[in-house]
Amino acid sequence: MNIWVVLLSVLFVLVEGVVSKKAGGGGGVNIWPMPVSVSYGHQSVFMSKDFKLKTEGSNYKDASCILKDGFSRFLDVVSLAHVIEGDFSKFNASTILQGLNVVISSQDDELQYGVDESYKLLVPSPQNPALAHLEAKTVYGALHGLQTFSQLCQFNFSSRVIEVSKTPWTITDQPRFSFRGLLIDTSRHYQPLPTLKKVIDSMAYAKLNVFHWHIVDTQSFPLEIPSYPKLWDGAYSIQERYTVADAAEIICSETRINVLAELDVPGHALSWGRGYPSLWPSKDCQQPLDVSNEFSFKVIDGILSDFSKIFKFKFVHLGGDEVDTSCWKLTPHVSKWLEKRGMNETQAYEYFVLRAQKIALSHGYEIVNWEETFNNFGDKLNPKTVVHNWLGGGVAQKVVAAGLRCIVSNQDKWYLDHLDALWPDFYMNEPLTNITDPKQQKLVIGGEVCMWGETVDTSDIEQTIWPRAAAAAERLWTPYDNLAKDPVKVIGRLTNFRCLLNRRGVAAAPLIGLGRSAPVEPGSCYAQ
Amino acid sequence: MNIWVVLLSVLFVLVEGVVSKKAGGGGGVNIWPMPVSVSYGHQSVFMSKDFKLKTEGSNYKDASCILKDGFSRFLDVVSLAHVIEGDFSKFNASTILQGLNVVISSQDDELQYGVDESYKLLVPSPQNPALAHLEAKTVYGALHGLQTFSQLCQFNFSSRVIEVSKTPWTITDQPRFSFRGLLIDTSRHYQPLPTLKKVIDSMAYAKLNVFHWHIVDTQSFPLEIPSYPKLWDGAYSIQERYTVADAAEIICSETRINVLAELDVPGHALSWGRGYPSLWPSKDCQQPLDVSNEFSFKVIDGILSDFSKIFKFKFVHLGGDEVDTSCWKLTPHVSKWLEKRGMNETQAYEYFVLRAQKIALSHGYEIVNWEETFNNFGDKLNPKTVVHNWLGGGVAQKVVAAGLRCIVSNQDKWYLDHLDALWPDFYMNEPLTNITDPKQQKLVIGGEVCMWGETVDTSDIEQTIWPRAAAAAERLWTPYDNLAKDPVKVIGRLTNFRCLLNRRGVAAAPLIGLGRSAPVEPGSCYAQ
Repeated sequence: MNIWVVLLSVLFVLVEGVVSKKAGGGGGVNIWPMPVSVSYGHQSVFMSKDFKLKTEGSNYKDASCILKDGFSRFLDVVSLAHVIEGDFSKFNASTILQGLNVVISSQDDELQYGVDESYKLLVPSPQNPALAHLEAKTVYGALHGLQTFSQLCQFNFSSRVIEVSKTPWTITDQPRFSFRGLLIDTSRHYQPLPTLKKVIDSMAYAKLNVFHWHIVDTQSFPLEIPSYPKLWDGAYSIQERYTVADAAEIICSETRINVLAELDVPGHALSWGRGYPSLWPSKDCQQPLDVSNEFSFKVIDGILSDFSKIFKFKFVHLGGDEVDTSCWKLTPHVSKWLEKRGMNETQAYEYFVLRAQKIALSHGYEIVNWEETFNNFGDKLNPKTVVHNWLGGGVAQKVVAAGLRCIVSNQDKWYLDHLDALWPDFYMNEPLTNITDPKQQKLVIGGEVCMWGETVDTSDIEQTIWPRAAAAAERLWTPYDNLAKDPVKVIGRLTNFRCLLNRRGVAAAPLIGLGRSAPVEPGSCYAQ
Repeated sequence: MNIWVVLLSVLFVLVEGVVSKKAGGGGGVNIWPMPVSVSYGHQSVFMSKDFKLKTEGSNYKDASCILKDGFSRFLDVVSLAHVIEGDFSKFNASTILQGLNVVISSQDDELQYGVDESYKLLVPSPQNPALAHLEAKTVYGALHGLQTFSQLCQFNFSSRVIEVSKTPWTITDQPRFSFRGLLIDTSRHYQPLPTLKKVIDSMAYAKLNVFHWHIVDTQSFPLEIPSYPKLWDGAYSIQERYTVADAAEIICSETRINVLAELDVPGHALSWGRGYPSLWPSKDCQQPLDVSNEFSFKVIDGILSDFSKIFKFKFVHLGGDEVDTSCWKLTPHVSKWLEKRGMNETQAYEYFVLRAQKIALSHGYEIVNWEETFNNFGDKLNPKTVVHNWLGGGVAQKVVAAGLRCIVSNQDKWYLDHLDALWPDFYMNEPLTNITDPKQQKLVIGGEVCMWGETVDTSDIEQTIWPRAAAAAERLWTPYDNLAKDPVKVIGRLTNFRCLLNRRGVAAAPLIGLGRSAPVEPGSCYAQ
């Protein structure tokens, strides 16, 4: 793996000149992730100081201000890095872009899995060159179009305004996979609200669309559960907690993104017992949750009932990984219960997971489970299960052959806490490896990079996520044929994206080095 | 040094219970830096949803909205971490704080070195218990009072509103030193505007008051200089530049803070010659600046003239450190020039520094110079010089004995890029060591922690600065008698401050470990 560290350092020396020149907006298409199709010219237009949103010909009413807020964020990010002070009276009027016309055909703006995310962007509009033109089926496609547009905008140091060079641009785009996730773990370390909101904002820059919230685990239970308020006793401290209103704030954060809430059962649940000790099989066996106790399932039902009021995503994640059942057998009352039912521990694990699945289904959710559930009793899983791969490669192949859906997160390539997994590893990890049947390919709904929280708090979360998550984001968004077959080919463009993140105040780390490495020496952002 | 790493880890285990309990707002005064005097009671008040700024009895007009903006930032930071959703109809009216009355006696709001920074804060006001009361000589004292007030505010998870517990509070406060700085180096790495603005915001949280901008150095020249526009050619890339308007934006950032601009001459100036090669003695000798060339001084004059239009701080920093004059002698025309004037290189270095000082004085500045200038020709320095210590301890003592003013930044304790200088080192570094004469003590105007940029960009600047800079900030603000004599005594309070920074979205690193270390394992913020 570490050969990449050496190799990339050498490559940067070789390509430094090229990359640095490009930094100013020179040759090449600097859009990340790369769209389906892009064409451009050799003109320039400049954004008016009074750049306006128009919606002529659009069917969409924007009652919840999703488009309006998205446009306002667009204006913010393109003008963050420098003071815009150009004198527009000196410009040739024909080079000034007065605004953006957004045409959305669908009136529906429910954010849900599988929503149409396609868009088409023309800068300027051939019909009206004073405007840029963005069209999309849904407002969510339009939001992606705004992200792409923001990457075409660059401060021009001569005119002191925002320039879009290489016009006319014609970009059509849509994602390859419908599920493009980032997992954040708020149990190993509590992540304050501003931290989570900033990460969610930055996800949109890379067109990731699912925030997988690994809310609770062994170490702490930070989220308020009105049905079982003492679960909150499992928080690290009084301050390190989320109210229901805080959770709603994350879900309804301005950057609209799907939130996949996780309840990792029956393992990874020790913290539940701090408030309700009867969930522990015994003082010496504090997880997995007590399979023999009806209260365990009552609490799961209560939590999922509360979840269903705020987490409106089609899926809920029920975990099911790393279940070490050995202490069940060592606990007399659990052991007796197993005996009575003629179950061994593996069967009890299966019983637990399937019963939790039924509870989730009863609350209207489809289910995501970590791959161990499939590996152990795949044929028993509810057909609405999406299997979440993590242990290694080759799992998706088996899952889709069994007719189930799959999300890819193999830890050797897509776990962000693996600091020795470098961005080329993230970039080259192909979810459809060895899956050739188009029907089976469709069952791989996407993938997810995972930011486990053992060594990650507000102080280092952003640089551990970026730029590596961006490398995976292109793999998940861009058509296979447009992806680089050799990651060296995208160094310049990915470097540009990381510098763009930095200009937007996101602490994306250098490309050289292990995950979250500090820059090793002085130098331009475009050469590190 | 590393004994601290071990010791602190052990201490955290020992005090963890205590610290975690305190985290909720329990015992102790959790204000950082510690004020001059604090008294408190055992009541609680709750901030009204419609908490208002009042200025009854104040002489200050706030024409530039300094107070109004500060109050608005105060409201933002106290409500960032959780959604405020309390039902005020359920509260006892006498426990609701309706607003803050700010009484400022001076109408003048010029931000300058030595401005009165004292304040007095009463929560609630004895005269009108529905209000808190803040009085100050100047608006800058009032801004500090707002920072202190913000640290008394904490989200209450029962009532879901902001609580100020332990009222009534009576706090009187003023800084021990008038110069409390943080150096940021934008030459080794370009730091984008949002990065700089966020760091400046966070400085105010710790009551630091001087942003020392080490703008240019050997590696790059990012700032626009209208008088000599080609100096900008020394930037790393087109995008990695600041316009004059960008600089003005930093200076006038909402968090009003003094900006000490540095022009480090004659060494550390290689990048100047990219645009004006004649500033280089030769192709093989690219720094120090050519002492024999009048153009060198013309350019310095031009830069300082441009500086004086935007950098209104009383002082400008002229560098003067690490001047390796050896290649002057090896350059024939410089060598000839030296010979003609009967100067050796050390005399030429002195000649350069003193001439630069005169230019700065002619533009109305007093001067800061790094300590080598004092060490080499201290008796020749203009009496308006402030000597900036960095090489080690014991320098301030000599400087003030010579009647000059001094700023302390000894690298072994106050250089943030020294990752093995831990927060207890920062905390215990006493600027007045061995200076007993009160007259001489007054000549130590303060100190500065230095964030040299060799391995620091947007990805790691915040966690390299915090929490260590906070430890120095208390040393510089708090009266000597209130400072802990043993840093172990402040672990709980400093931990609380670092968690407060995290809650405000500032990437402050754990207290355990070397500078900018990641958390080593899962755990509460209050135990790391």
